[in-house]
Amino acid sequence: MSNYFPSVEKIRYEGPSTENQLAYRFYDPGKVVLGKTMAEHLRIAVCYWHTFCNHGDDAFGVATRHLPWDDAPTPLAAAEKKLDAAVEFISKLGVEFFTFHDRDLAPEGKTFAESTNNLKHMVDKLAAQMAKHKLKLLWGTANCFSHSRYMAGSATSCNPEVFAYAAAQVKCAMEATHQLGGSGYVLWGGREGYDSLLNTNLSQELDQLGRFLTMVAEHKHKIGFKGQLLIEPKPCEPTKHQYDFDTSAVFAFLQKHKLDKEYHINIETNHATLAGHSFADEVGYACANNIFGSIDINRGDPQNGWDTDQFPSSVEELTYVVYQILQYGGFKQGGFNFDAKLRRQSNDLLDLFYAHIGGIDVLAKSLLIAADLMTSKKLQAVVDQRYHQWQGSLGQQILKGGHSLQSLSDYVQQNKIDPTVHSGRQELCENIINQHLWCHKN
Amino acid sequence: MSNYFPSVEKIRYEGPSTENQLAYRFYDPGKVVLGKTMAEHLRIAVCYWHTFCNHGDDAFGVATRHLPWDDAPTPLAAAEKKLDAAVEFISKLGVEFFTFHDRDLAPEGKTFAESTNNLKHMVDKLAAQMAKHKLKLLWGTANCFSHSRYMAGSATSCNPEVFAYAAAQVKCAMEATHQLGGSGYVLWGGREGYDSLLNTNLSQELDQLGRFLTMVAEHKHKIGFKGQLLIEPKPCEPTKHQYDFDTSAVFAFLQKHKLDKEYHINIETNHATLAGHSFADEVGYACANNIFGSIDINRGDPQNGWDTDQFPSSVEELTYVVYQILQYGGFKQGGFNFDAKLRRQSNDLLDLFYAHIGGIDVLAKSLLIAADLMTSKKLQAVVDQRYHQWQGSLGQQILKGGHSLQSLSDYVQQNKIDPTVHSGRQELCENIINQHLWCHKN
Amino acid sequence: MSNYFPSVEKIRYEGPSTENQLAYRFYDPGKVVLGKTMAEHLRIAVCYWHTFCNHGDDAFGVATRHLPWDDAPTPLAAAEKKLDAAVEFISKLGVEFFTFHDRDLAPEGKTFAESTNNLKHMVDKLAAQMAKHKLKLLWGTANCFSHSRYMAGSATSCNPEVFAYAAAQVKCAMEATHQLGGSGYVLWGGREGYDSLLNTNLSQELDQLGRFLTMVAEHKHKIGFKGQLLIEPKPCEPTKHQYDFDTSAVFAFLQKHKLDKEYHINIETNHATLAGHSFADEVGYACANNIFGSIDINRGDPQNGWDTDQFPSSVEELTYVVYQILQYGGFKQGGFNFDAKLRRQSNDLLDLFYAHIGGIDVLAKSLLIAADLMTSKKLQAVVDQRYHQWQGSLGQQILKGGHSLQSLSDYVQQNKIDPTVHSGRQELCENIINQHLWCHKN
Amino acid sequence: MSNYFPSVEKIRYEGPSTENQLAYRFYDPGKVVLGKTMAEHLRIAVCYWHTFCNHGDDAFGVATRHLPWDDAPTPLAAAEKKLDAAVEFISKLGVEFFTFHDRDLAPEGKTFAESTNNLKHMVDKLAAQMAKHKLKLLWGTANCFSHSRYMAGSATSCNPEVFAYAAAQVKCAMEATHQLGGSGYVLWGGREGYDSLLNTNLSQELDQLGRFLTMVAEHKHKIGFKGQLLIEPKPCEPTKHQYDFDTSAVFAFLQKHKLDKEYHINIETNHATLAGHSFADEVGYACANNIFGSIDINRGDPQNGWDTDQFPSSVEELTYVVYQILQYGGFKQGGFNFDAKLRRQSNDLLDLFYAHIGGIDVLAKSLLIAADLMTSKKLQAVVDQRYHQWQGSLGQQILKGGHSLQSLSDYVQQNKIDPTVHSGRQELCENIINQHLWCHKN
Repeated sequence: MSNYFPSVEKIRYEGPSTENQLAYRFYDPGKVVLGKTMAEHLRIAVCYWHTFCNHGDDAFGVATRHLPWDDAPTPLAAAEKKLDAAVEFISKLGVEFFTFHDRDLAPEGKTFAESTNNLKHMVDKLAAQMAKHKLKLLWGTANCFSHSRYMAGSATSCNPEVFAYAAAQVKCAMEATHQLGGSGYVLWGGREGYDSLLNTNLSQELDQLGRFLTMVAEHKHKIGFKGQLLIEPKPCEPTKHQYDFDTSAVFAFLQKHKLDKEYHINIETNHATLAGHSFADEVGYACANNIFGSIDINRGDPQNGWDTDQFPSSVEELTYVVYQILQYGGFKQGGFNFDAKLRRQSNDLLDLFYAHIGGIDVLAKSLLIAADLMTSKKLQAVVDQRYHQWQGSLGQQILKGGHSLQSLSDYVQQNKIDPTVHSGRQELCENIINQHLWCHKN
Repeated sequence: MSNYFPSVEKIRYEGPSTENQLAYRFYDPGKVVLGKTMAEHLRIAVCYWHTFCNHGDDAFGVATRHLPWDDAPTPLAAAEKKLDAAVEFISKLGVEFFTFHDRDLAPEGKTFAESTNNLKHMVDKLAAQMAKHKLKLLWGTANCFSHSRYMAGSATSCNPEVFAYAAAQVKCAMEATHQLGGSGYVLWGGREGYDSLLNTNLSQELDQLGRFLTMVAEHKHKIGFKGQLLIEPKPCEPTKHQYDFDTSAVFAFLQKHKLDKEYHINIETNHATLAGHSFADEVGYACANNIFGSIDINRGDPQNGWDTDQFPSSVEELTYVVYQILQYGGFKQGGFNFDAKLRRQSNDLLDLFYAHIGGIDVLAKSLLIAADLMTSKKLQAVVDQRYHQWQGSLGQQILKGGHSLQSLSDYVQQNKIDPTVHSGRQELCENIINQHLWCHKN
Repeated sequence: MSNYFPSVEKIRYEGPSTENQLAYRFYDPGKVVLGKTMAEHLRIAVCYWHTFCNHGDDAFGVATRHLPWDDAPTPLAAAEKKLDAAVEFISKLGVEFFTFHDRDLAPEGKTFAESTNNLKHMVDKLAAQMAKHKLKLLWGTANCFSHSRYMAGSATSCNPEVFAYAAAQVKCAMEATHQLGGSGYVLWGGREGYDSLLNTNLSQELDQLGRFLTMVAEHKHKIGFKGQLLIEPKPCEPTKHQYDFDTSAVFAFLQKHKLDKEYHINIETNHATLAGHSFADEVGYACANNIFGSIDINRGDPQNGWDTDQFPSSVEELTYVVYQILQYGGFKQGGFNFDAKLRRQSNDLLDLFYAHIGGIDVLAKSLLIAADLMTSKKLQAVVDQRYHQWQGSLGQQILKGGHSLQSLSDYVQQNKIDPTVHSGRQELCENIINQHLWCHKN
Repeated sequence: MSNYFPSVEKIRYEGPSTENQLAYRFYDPGKVVLGKTMAEHLRIAVCYWHTFCNHGDDAFGVATRHLPWDDAPTPLAAAEKKLDAAVEFISKLGVEFFTFHDRDLAPEGKTFAESTNNLKHMVDKLAAQMAKHKLKLLWGTANCFSHSRYMAGSATSCNPEVFAYAAAQVKCAMEATHQLGGSGYVLWGGREGYDSLLNTNLSQELDQLGRFLTMVAEHKHKIGFKGQLLIEPKPCEPTKHQYDFDTSAVFAFLQKHKLDKEYHINIETNHATLAGHSFADEVGYACANNIFGSIDINRGDPQNGWDTDQFPSSVEELTYVVYQILQYGGFKQGGFNFDAKLRRQSNDLLDLFYAHIGGIDVLAKSLLIAADLMTSKKLQAVVDQRYHQWQGSLGQQILKGGHSLQSLSDYVQQNKIDPTVHSGRQELCENIINQHLWCHKN
């Protein structure tokens, strides 16, 4: 194996009392929680782009971080070194999964054919490494947003040749994902939106997008890919307004194009909050509508209105989200992808380890507490009590479709109904969560 | 006629050069624009609640405004005086339409039966006045959010008796709307959401809401009401999160419950912006998906995160929105409802006139400029040019479903496609709009 | 003692393992932490207005909560019963402090004289109860925002008679606070701002406010009041824009009017976040500028743009804030005021206990962890290391004023300075905080 | 002159009725308005960085725009070509002013000495061109935020060598500005803030910043530079939180360090709105506190939470701001700087002209209407009437310091004062503005 991180051994579980900053305090991959191992529950993935391609530049400043695998005579040679670094990092971190865009793995060539060859070359190398190191692909995707040809969108470009180009690129990336045994394939429409409504044919662009996603689903079936197709909502940035604004916008779109059985949702914490939702709301909505798929676990900053892509740090926020996922039955083919990047000032490769270890421990601790919530049933008891009247005959008749406005109006008048509602006990529920967070031993 | 506004004569069109603050500068109801009168285009409605029931109290302070029609021995007697004031006001303003909640028109009684009788009593009086003064009802609605019984929602309450009560109330309000010849019936789910996910059964509440809206649509057909059913999205306030968050959330919901042919959307400027959208975006989205219905034209404050319900004041903002509506073919059964309230410090009844006159003139001016945009086709020309390649054979084949990822991949490789995209000309489009705003004579 | 809460005994510390929802798990008033008792550190105060005067009404709905002490023949008689309820509640909760507005305690009369007499009457009764039950006043204040006379502000009203009226009212309220031994007197300028710049003389209003605050400080000294004067920033609501927008706006204002030694800042979590700051930022800024005074510990909702005034529930958020306060040396005369209100659906008096107990335990747990952070010095060590070069001669010379642009330019050129910066270790710092939160025994 | 824009002639005023997109409809530089020419009022400046250095890349994508002046054998040779292009562009646009950062004009060298030499070389060339083409410098500044050495700030870096380096760089840039006869020198603290409070010594960083700004002011006097020193507030981005958050934060800071007579404020529309203020509020506050200096006229997007730096397009928004500036007496040494960049899709050099022409016309039209507002005095009349009671004896006595809480309390009680407040007439004021916008001939 390569040795880009010579000062770091494989990260191991040492428990809460360790003083070692390069150890897990809560993430114990093989520990069984509610009948599955932690690793099986969390399905943690390292992302290729932020972790191995990000140099710390931002809109106001240049790179701050030197990545030694960049030092190579050609882009393809650098890509090979980067792959070695990635395998070393993921292996030392001790997680199973990773995720990638086509252009993270292999450089764009001068022509489409060259780009495709580059990708095939690297996918073959990656496949060999995955087998050797027992790594798995959570999902793959195509970068159809960085190149200038995509400046007006890919599927929603004003130029149909761009649509065609994106289709060809997605075909390659999906087939690469299939070859690597990916559990999913993601579409993030970073440029599928508009910068100004004034120059936009909204109706046509939405039709284009429907056509594109239909073709993608058809190709999946054609090649026999069994992973889930995922759409990742984001309200804006880089565009002023993105069509996949939030989970409900995607759900509306999928239904209109009869694609709601073909796609699931990849929810990112940071995108949820940029759209004006709590993370828990987006997850809850997706679960309630049976379109929940996977998670990008990076968070935003509560005061900053752009994608800060920070590592998760709040057990309080994630406990309830993991609880929702447990109630939903856990991930089917999804997982927790760390689409998170180091802060620009974290210019030391060691910071990559600190950041991932901290984030993974936050998830592990959240899982432990959420499992406690499942077991204690204390929160569920409050909810059940609150809605218990719906178990009675009136409630059941209504839900089964046995009533009309007329029949309910008669019911109210004949029975002189004057209903009252009991306390919602919101503060008590918040206390119950806090008691699980702070008082239980886990 | 009553005389609550003795210093005000009927408001007349006097043109841009008048010095009279109680006159229209742009709103000339009978003026023909693009083949219809201004009044037919705009279908302006005064709202009963903010205009005749609002006393200037807010969350931090008591009433500032005395409404003389409140001075009556009983609530029902006050309601009768209020009706007189409303008819006088609307007539003097010279618009045709109004909108109401059941409880604005008639007071809640001690029992459901008494409330129903109060409403019937007032609806009969209102019907007579409408006939006499040639007034029309844009839409009616039921207030299922103010009473404490609705604190946990109406259709989505944790208590099915509340669901039944709301059903009975909506039945009465819809029938009153039908009796009054309303062009629409609105449902605003002010409490159909949650204050905390912790105590909420999201899935069940959404099912309840689906059941409720289905019953409403069935009742419409049963009684032969021909107005449109409308849902008014709002993201939050009073609840932490409302299910009808924005137009796409409603569209997703309607499709899931097979109600998307039954309901249209009533978009409020202020609700659009609270949801993180531009007003134009919500209108454009609704039009693109054929669910556009009607407008609440009150705006919010760009810096304040709650419903300020201010009168419209920006021709710049509304011109493009009216242009979108003209492109869509204009209102079918909808209109511009002034769901706007005076500022708390505007404690003089004259302010009601200043506010409505100003707002109506803003709409009228916007219509004039939008009609110019339609006629000049300058903006449309930029858009058409931008997408013109989609008229070619590749674009048409794609849109007609004649391509797959495979065939497009072949196309790209065989033709060595390397597409570029021309300037989006956003700044030029902004100049074109400004030229119509500031340079044309209208 | 009265018996408005018959089912509740005095709330006691029972430790983390109790199953009793009416007990403290962390708040152990007499427990010594870093040399002071928990009670001395936290100085917890119940607020009179939200706790005893709030009926659950909001901008879209009427009251949901019946307060039995309202059932009295006259407003003054109700005020007496409310005082009994307050004393019972605070005593049972087992905290020492409370806070009040003049109008919470005693009803507004028909004239200024009657209002003053009502207040004096109630203050005398309150003083007796405080002595008997060993209660203390954290701070008092005057409600100069709810009455319609204050609709355009009090000190900043366009009518100087309103200024005079407010001055008279503040005089009474400050003297009542003095009589009751208050540790502070607060000014919250809820209407000291504007709804529209168009009708506002900004410069004159700011001068009026300067005059008012000067008079208040002079009166404090005249009557020998030794409590601290506090200003509570808030960016908006009820006004569109409030002059005391945030801590820096207040600090700028105080310096301009030479009042920065006279006033300290009362920071509210919810107001900090509405102003676009983190709570920790506002506290840190106030401490760094030596104007930190006291805290209103109620939080907002991250997705809602108005004052939700929720009880604190996040140990993660508060730990670092309490750590900042400990580093500053703790409260001098301030404390943690619970300016928090029950959710509208929490319509049971028991909810008042659940909410306060939960919030107080959150503060207590945060104090325990923050004390650990102080003791471990792990976070401080990272910070010290990061800035250690400023301890060298160049840094010290700069800070002592021994350099100019010229001398530093010479230094850079002569020494061929080409500086680099080490990793900011942000992710490691986040891990350190989390280790104190989740791994320590406290 | 160079010929980078061969299809464009000098842009001329052709009046509102022209169909030429490369002409001014309102900006007529020599036209006299309220005693000064339009050019003297507006003092319009083109910015060097966005206009000549921006390639359309963003956080999610690479360059979209080819700038022909980049095609040169060395960075310095490219800088010379860029200077030619700039002079051609500004001359053809027909405005007098420009603004620059040191690194826009001349490339960073391998050493500080080389960077300084590069700058001197280019400044000499620029000086010659300015003389030849009668161009003026509105202000200069130093880029102390893009290089990795500044990742933790310049004045507020954790490394004092970085402080020294920034001091040396600012010295050069200020002297270059002085040499070029600049009207001002700006400091924008893009990295003077923190990414995390956890690793930040807030108090020390603020002291460092105070030291730095003091040295800058001293150096200004030492070299005899007569331009104004300006600080440009921004709340965040690139940092999580910037110390110069908004105008009031800067004003507080300046007063604390006794620098409030040395610095004025450079307000950017986009930064005002990111800080939660209206643009008009920031301008009004700066004027009311006598620290108003200059304007960056680029706007943000109302729905996007980052710096979009768009060209101004709203006459409605700017009219009232220009009115405020006229009331303040106009710019002293400031002006309107177009710190605006083309949208990423505007990849044609012609777009640079469209964008500037549109923005300049918006300012010109706003000036015309604001001048009307000054002349008509209609808005002023409402304001004067609203505050007229302050002209009476009570008001004047209060403002002159002739009252205390005691004397005002006596006044209220003896005169049985029970004040009321007249309507604020906000809606009427909005109508008055709209009448000036839409009804006047200008």
